[in-house]
Amino acid sequence: MRVGVLTGGGDCPGLNAVIRGIVRKGTQEYGYDFVGFRDGWRGPLEGRSMRLDIPAVRGILPRGGTILGSSRTNPFKEEDGVRRIKETLAKHEVEALIAIGGEDTLGVASRLFTEHGVPCVGVPKTIDNDLSATDYTFGFDTAVGVATEAIDRLHTTAESHMRVLVVEVMGRHAGWIALHSGLAGGANVILIPEQRFDVGEVCRWIESRFKASYAPIVVVAEGAMPKDGDMVLKDGSTDSFGHVRLSGVGEWLAKEVEARTGKEARTTVLGHTQRGGTPSAFDRWLATRFGLHAIDAVRDADYGTMVALRGTDIVRVPLSEATAKLKTVDPALYAEVGVFFG
Amino acid sequence: MRVGVLTGGGDCPGLNAVIRGIVRKGTQEYGYDFVGFRDGWRGPLEGRSMRLDIPAVRGILPRGGTILGSSRTNPFKEEDGVRRIKETLAKHEVEALIAIGGEDTLGVASRLFTEHGVPCVGVPKTIDNDLSATDYTFGFDTAVGVATEAIDRLHTTAESHMRVLVVEVMGRHAGWIALHSGLAGGANVILIPEQRFDVGEVCRWIESRFKASYAPIVVVAEGAMPKDGDMVLKDGSTDSFGHVRLSGVGEWLAKEVEARTGKEARTTVLGHTQRGGTPSAFDRWLATRFGLHAIDAVRDADYGTMVALRGTDIVRVPLSEATAKLKTVDPALYAEVGVFFG
Amino acid sequence: MRVGVLTGGGDCPGLNAVIRGIVRKGTQEYGYDFVGFRDGWRGPLEGRSMRLDIPAVRGILPRGGTILGSSRTNPFKEEDGVRRIKETLAKHEVEALIAIGGEDTLGVASRLFTEHGVPCVGVPKTIDNDLSATDYTFGFDTAVGVATEAIDRLHTTAESHMRVLVVEVMGRHAGWIALHSGLAGGANVILIPEQRFDVGEVCRWIESRFKASYAPIVVVAEGAMPKDGDMVLKDGSTDSFGHVRLSGVGEWLAKEVEARTGKEARTTVLGHTQRGGTPSAFDRWLATRFGLHAIDAVRDADYGTMVALRGTDIVRVPLSEATAKLKTVDPALYAEVGVFFG
Amino acid sequence: MRVGVLTGGGDCPGLNAVIRGIVRKGTQEYGYDFVGFRDGWRGPLEGRSMRLDIPAVRGILPRGGTILGSSRTNPFKEEDGVRRIKETLAKHEVEALIAIGGEDTLGVASRLFTEHGVPCVGVPKTIDNDLSATDYTFGFDTAVGVATEAIDRLHTTAESHMRVLVVEVMGRHAGWIALHSGLAGGANVILIPEQRFDVGEVCRWIESRFKASYAPIVVVAEGAMPKDGDMVLKDGSTDSFGHVRLSGVGEWLAKEVEARTGKEARTTVLGHTQRGGTPSAFDRWLATRFGLHAIDAVRDADYGTMVALRGTDIVRVPLSEATAKLKTVDPALYAEVGVFFG
Repeated sequence: MRVGVLTGGGDCPGLNAVIRGIVRKGTQEYGYDFVGFRDGWRGPLEGRSMRLDIPAVRGILPRGGTILGSSRTNPFKEEDGVRRIKETLAKHEVEALIAIGGEDTLGVASRLFTEHGVPCVGVPKTIDNDLSATDYTFGFDTAVGVATEAIDRLHTTAESHMRVLVVEVMGRHAGWIALHSGLAGGANVILIPEQRFDVGEVCRWIESRFKASYAPIVVVAEGAMPKDGDMVLKDGSTDSFGHVRLSGVGEWLAKEVEARTGKEARTTVLGHTQRGGTPSAFDRWLATRFGLHAIDAVRDADYGTMVALRGTDIVRVPLSEATAKLKTVDPALYAEVGVFFG
Repeated sequence: MRVGVLTGGGDCPGLNAVIRGIVRKGTQEYGYDFVGFRDGWRGPLEGRSMRLDIPAVRGILPRGGTILGSSRTNPFKEEDGVRRIKETLAKHEVEALIAIGGEDTLGVASRLFTEHGVPCVGVPKTIDNDLSATDYTFGFDTAVGVATEAIDRLHTTAESHMRVLVVEVMGRHAGWIALHSGLAGGANVILIPEQRFDVGEVCRWIESRFKASYAPIVVVAEGAMPKDGDMVLKDGSTDSFGHVRLSGVGEWLAKEVEARTGKEARTTVLGHTQRGGTPSAFDRWLATRFGLHAIDAVRDADYGTMVALRGTDIVRVPLSEATAKLKTVDPALYAEVGVFFG
Repeated sequence: MRVGVLTGGGDCPGLNAVIRGIVRKGTQEYGYDFVGFRDGWRGPLEGRSMRLDIPAVRGILPRGGTILGSSRTNPFKEEDGVRRIKETLAKHEVEALIAIGGEDTLGVASRLFTEHGVPCVGVPKTIDNDLSATDYTFGFDTAVGVATEAIDRLHTTAESHMRVLVVEVMGRHAGWIALHSGLAGGANVILIPEQRFDVGEVCRWIESRFKASYAPIVVVAEGAMPKDGDMVLKDGSTDSFGHVRLSGVGEWLAKEVEARTGKEARTTVLGHTQRGGTPSAFDRWLATRFGLHAIDAVRDADYGTMVALRGTDIVRVPLSEATAKLKTVDPALYAEVGVFFG
Repeated sequence: MRVGVLTGGGDCPGLNAVIRGIVRKGTQEYGYDFVGFRDGWRGPLEGRSMRLDIPAVRGILPRGGTILGSSRTNPFKEEDGVRRIKETLAKHEVEALIAIGGEDTLGVASRLFTEHGVPCVGVPKTIDNDLSATDYTFGFDTAVGVATEAIDRLHTTAESHMRVLVVEVMGRHAGWIALHSGLAGGANVILIPEQRFDVGEVCRWIESRFKASYAPIVVVAEGAMPKDGDMVLKDGSTDSFGHVRLSGVGEWLAKEVEARTGKEARTTVLGHTQRGGTPSAFDRWLATRFGLHAIDAVRDADYGTMVALRGTDIVRVPLSEATAKLKTVDPALYAEVGVFFG
């Protein structure tokens, strides 16, 4: 049996660990062959593949990124896309396909399975951790760790100069990275996309910190928005994935804070450092187990499913759940953390 | 209302985060006062306490260890222990006591509550992650991270000299740290206390790695034992906590491997570096939430309980569960990871 | 004998290590007393001081920032500044003053000594490493380490998407951080303030990397400028220290590269994370030794001097050298590193 | 022109950076070819070589160990060794040989050049930093960093239990790693091979720390010895390099301290984690520059030399200096650091 593997969407620490888990178990336990498709769905679409065997996955566990490359190509938006994919799979004698990716990548896998009978298994990937079907996704813990370490570093510079430091972290639609890294880093204010913030309230919190002679750290998710909606974003351009770039809230906020409180404020935008580099031990564990369980789903011919974490168990859920519902920060959890503000 | 807090047993990254969470929420939300008892149960036993308010917990979130100090003192083994504890609590007008600790510390809290009506709430702490009542305990993720980073480093030295490297990690009764760090670090053999190992099989795995021109890394939990039981431990002395010191399996194994395979083998014992230093972001998150929920249990007068993690939720369980059952590595999970051996 | 200590200018990992070295040796070996002046020259100017003894410096070695606070206040620009400083020193019976700071802070110390007879000893501090009088300054190694780790992380994200990544690091007038972190991080292009860059050449290098199927990493110092001088900076405002803010070259360059090569390019501005947090072992060593030697200069009444590193020795040089000459990157050294470009 | 490259002796972070620097500059600037000899002098002795060109050195900069492998083989101790080496070089048409290694490896290179006219250039490598000819060797900064981070972690565990922690670091003949990491980690006692220690004095220092309510950290180099010479080492066996294994001083000392002071003491032996893994930015910089300058020495036909660091410059010195004199810790420098003891 030959199994195809591809990775789609933004890169995420742990992708290589998934691939390695799939290939090692598939080869050693089940005697499968593998073919790697390059750059997400563009690979099977354009017939671009690479060798994927045990030597190919040697040493990749601690490496960030993906040896298969990635893209945001959507075959349903390409002329004759589905037919071309099926032809590539047939040509390579691929009998099952494992797609590792986010909402878009797995949405394609779901439709390919449901509408066209392509035997797909999914592995969920979102650095933002905003997928309801699973307790955590790999990459998230690494991103939180990078952001927390940055916040740790910024505390001392804030205190030495008694400045406000605004740290902008990833999270367009969900505030998980902001919430976890903000709490872990001892931030004094955390702003998330789920709840529009009131700049006046933020400034009052900041001033109360100064009174207690703290230098305040504000962590803001890139997708957070002010209540009054008067934020002028740096640009409204879309990135290569078709998403509107919301970067700019950090800088905007620092200027507002300076203007309203008279305190010096500085912004740091953590950017891509959050999604690159070696995965944390937690993410290597989770990603490897996702890979081991994905190849088991193939062995069981349990197509149309994806693997997910529930507590400490890996389970299978329908692929359709991948795109079902955004997992956002519960107001109760946000309130729980709010005890550290102000 | 005045609440007492103490930390008992071995130190563990995240203890300070729990204390900070308790004190900040208790003070700001509920208006409670706090008194810190020093060095575990020895504190209330000997009337040793310290100030515990918001300034006292400032800046402690990223710091390992415990500002309250710790010990393994057991008041039930001390003359008149229970009476002396009750007197100290009465003297300080303490109406509730939060005990943060492992099996022994919480076992005392459980008996004090059940047998003597002392209003106790528990927060579980075991770096070994071997408590059934909770999915994870804080400190464990930090220990796994430290061990994984060490294994990452050892790979290059193993490969440059084509040596066997044996890494001994913590875990007297359960192999969680060995399993997680071994998998995350790409170890080729992982030996845990739950399953006696066969030295001959380990040597065959090692030889198969050399044939594939890998330099093997063996991760062994300090409590792992060979099948044939012929291991002569370095010493049979007990440490200050009354446990038999099992250190020595790493060194013993390296010598056996050298003798049987003719390959050079070296041991590294990670030791106390695994339990000290700044907690990981994951552990700061978990420990802080444990603290926030422990003070809620006090507010609800829900004594005799302890907080626990289930999935992504913090729940309350009876204190007696803290000592109920050791959570060991399931043979199925060990087999799952076994695909990377040999 | 009582000695005053102050820290001025931007914060820098290692400041606390200097202070600790001064206080411990001064107290234990020479029996001196100390007084800490707060927030740079503003401290003696406004009579703001703090206790500075052995308990006060306990535990500060690994902490970034400065327990004394910092500012850019220049007493020569303040009404009656010198007289007020001399009054404060007299009032505290301070017989010698150790100033830890950069060009501006030490320039004040130099004038106070030369023109007004104030017995000053200097410790040089510049995170940018741009001081001719010393081989290295503390803080620089930490900044290079933070930047290198970020570049390491960015490689995998660049490769997974075959993007250009532009990393903007500190360095307004000198390219030391860019050069060291760029070389250590395996960057493909390094742009420094010392040599105006040719965007066309940069784009050719980038294209040659893509042809070799690398994803290029460009490291650019914040003070680097294009040859043709047509860069429109984000803003021309000055920061609180009176310097023009040159931030923006990274973003500008990424847009130029996208426009000229058609390749996707992203920017990461590392910002304040480079100057905060725990100092590297190298910086703790250097900073501590600077402190130990500064107090020796006081003991020798060798005023008007500052400590400096030459090879592995700490020497004393005239304070005037602190401001004498900017240490910029030698064209020969830049050319040496250039072998990795293109 | 074809140039041979080999790495000998114990592995050391930065070896790959040297190799990469040599190959990239040699290929791109001078048009040389390269051949890599495997496992130190065993490579040319047994005719074992590998491809060494630009693709072969891709991505190795941040990787520890050496892609060429290493050994302690000494051709002068092998039958007909010199003739076999000259034959291998002739067969591969190698006109110059760059040897990267320590005292032994470079001693061979020196004799091959002086006595047999083999055109050799050396790059010095010793993780212990004990070579007089150069200010620093690469690998040392990484080792100090690993040890310092471990000491940082151990502080909190020492303090939580008020224990003595003894940390044994590398350094058989010189105390550089102990001195730098001990100072940077805030150790209270540092014991080095250069000065026999008095256990009684160490115990008095420890007791004085406890009186000031510190938990003492003792850093001891593996080669440190007590004054009275009554230490019974764990074993007197020799390792594969023919050196007597001195491991054991840490454990021995902890037992002595416990016996004499009645305080609990624990040992951590850092071992191979100090010499593996990714090099620090400092070591990548130094190692890369060593490589770039070594190939320049080849271009200049300046054989019989080795590269060395003086201040911030790379210079050439006679190969014979590599083995001339051990660089030990100066008593004055040890005394300087001694201010932090007791």
